[in-house]
Amino acid sequence: MANKPVKALSTIAATEPLKVVNIERRTLTDKDIEIEILYCGICHSDLHVAQNDWGGSHYPLVPGHEIVGKVIGVGNSTTKFKINDIVGVGCIVDSCQHCTYCQQGHEQFCEEGWTVVFNSKDKKHGGFTYGGFSTNIIVNEDYVVHIPAGLNLPNAAPILCAGITVYSPLKHWKVDANKTVGIIGMGGLGHMAIKIAKAMGAYVTVFTTTPTKANDALQLGADKVIISTNEQEMKHCTKQDIILNTVSAKHNINEYINLLNVDGTIIMVGIPAQPLEIGAYNVIKGRKSFSGSNIGGIAETQEVLNFCAKHNITADIELINPDYINTAFERLSKGDVKYRFVLDMQKI
Amino acid sequence: MANKPVKALSTIAATEPLKVVNIERRTLTDKDIEIEILYCGICHSDLHVAQNDWGGSHYPLVPGHEIVGKVIGVGNSTTKFKINDIVGVGCIVDSCQHCTYCQQGHEQFCEEGWTVVFNSKDKKHGGFTYGGFSTNIIVNEDYVVHIPAGLNLPNAAPILCAGITVYSPLKHWKVDANKTVGIIGMGGLGHMAIKIAKAMGAYVTVFTTTPTKANDALQLGADKVIISTNEQEMKHCTKQDIILNTVSAKHNINEYINLLNVDGTIIMVGIPAQPLEIGAYNVIKGRKSFSGSNIGGIAETQEVLNFCAKHNITADIELINPDYINTAFERLSKGDVKYRFVLDMQKI
Repeated sequence: MANKPVKALSTIAATEPLKVVNIERRTLTDKDIEIEILYCGICHSDLHVAQNDWGGSHYPLVPGHEIVGKVIGVGNSTTKFKINDIVGVGCIVDSCQHCTYCQQGHEQFCEEGWTVVFNSKDKKHGGFTYGGFSTNIIVNEDYVVHIPAGLNLPNAAPILCAGITVYSPLKHWKVDANKTVGIIGMGGLGHMAIKIAKAMGAYVTVFTTTPTKANDALQLGADKVIISTNEQEMKHCTKQDIILNTVSAKHNINEYINLLNVDGTIIMVGIPAQPLEIGAYNVIKGRKSFSGSNIGGIAETQEVLNFCAKHNITADIELINPDYINTAFERLSKGDVKYRFVLDMQKI
Repeated sequence: MANKPVKALSTIAATEPLKVVNIERRTLTDKDIEIEILYCGICHSDLHVAQNDWGGSHYPLVPGHEIVGKVIGVGNSTTKFKINDIVGVGCIVDSCQHCTYCQQGHEQFCEEGWTVVFNSKDKKHGGFTYGGFSTNIIVNEDYVVHIPAGLNLPNAAPILCAGITVYSPLKHWKVDANKTVGIIGMGGLGHMAIKIAKAMGAYVTVFTTTPTKANDALQLGADKVIISTNEQEMKHCTKQDIILNTVSAKHNINEYINLLNVDGTIIMVGIPAQPLEIGAYNVIKGRKSFSGSNIGGIAETQEVLNFCAKHNITADIELINPDYINTAFERLSKGDVKYRFVLDMQKI
């Protein structure tokens, strides 16, 4: 059976716009699910990789890793999905499946390195992976999750990356009703973190440099907003058990470490390109930690979707047509979105 | 009753040598223990504070916070010690005793700030505290510990600071026979960390820039030595669950973070004066942590002494007479000591 041509938004170089082209998807193998993509969220890393900001981008390149779609084909040996199921695909589409971490369902720590849904060498099928800015995708069923009934589909798409990226560390560091949780930044990740940390029962403080975002933070569920450029507010801020840092620009991390309780942890989920300077004494005093976290495994991705369905949580989005993609990228680069663009791939 | 004059090694300015002078100790109160000091270890922080390297030094200044001595007086309401008991005093000689942390026995986290045995404002009795480079000291019994029988006294003195400083984080981060523990640096802290981590059952790797220290590390009990300037050795090094970093100079911390296992932690106990630069992605990948720890509480100080007695651990020391102090400080500033100078205060 020949490879299947499907439409996609693709770019041929770091400085080029995305355009609609035809790409080829592999033939369905025994373990594969074929998905008609309905919606795909636009994460800042899609933009970073399209522009080769981190190096290692391989063109032509089709971004997209917050995929919601409908099953339209199932391989002969698949057991988990049937035609018309509504499913999701996030960052991970393959891993070794035999290392300690894969065996535990923590594919994000795969010792051989996992395959990203886009711009990643496809070790099994050759070539490079193409992401969710397209009409179809074929993925091994072990890396596909169910979208629970009740979730609004376009708004659910960002759970596949933004959602799991904040849920995983909040859960790992045992956030509950006894914890104070700070969230730095109020973009795609930050706004999901507010909702999820609140649903876990925490007292949530949002740190933002933008006074006009204060009301939005409260509406999203925050208990308290601190304008981080206001020294007095920072000085009198309640001490935090956990601070989730979604900021990707270089900033003074020490002033946040100093807001932690004894044994508190600040967790990076944003990735500033430049190193952060940390005074050793800031972590020594009060046995504090500067930590990081990166997405989550497949089982945990299913878990966050179920959690969001239970607590009626989805992303606040701006649903756009594919022909708006380059404008969306431009606005995203300025932080001009509340809080996630989601592509309606049926309109391509 | 008049204050009591006692001999001490004191300095009157950052650039002046230490000299023998008479200082006054307070009159014994109901809760106090009077101790004839037998031995006092010399920690690098004694030198830093004597030289005002960190600012805030108050002269005249008497260093010393690794004190072993004999009880020669007990206040009317004391219950824990009797005349002739062999006892120890470390860094902490007072704290609020009513905050959450003091109540839990974690005086090192006292919310009102604890009183250091030297160069600290004495909130209860006025003036500044004078440390262990003297013949006598008077301390509230709640901050005095028992030296277990069987420990060689001069060699036990460094347990009061170097020992507790490394024991506390190794215990907090649950070091046991299933853990790989790296130790960076082989000074006073590092050499105690090797012994204690081995006694906890860990597989211990020592990182040093000095090839001539490799044999010493193995003799101290290390399972493996890595010369950290050797790229090949670093590249092929076993991944570490915990790395205890005793280095006080600025250095590349990222190369050690990259040696951590998933969920691994590097713990600062050395305090470089300049901030360390950390790439966020280094902690994000593998959910790693950069943490710190500072001494331990009084109960835990007693615990490490008991642990050391049980496992027959003391420091490797160079026992010196008080008239050698300025030469010892000079040698210490060059790292020229295996591995701790201890003052024989009876020879003053």
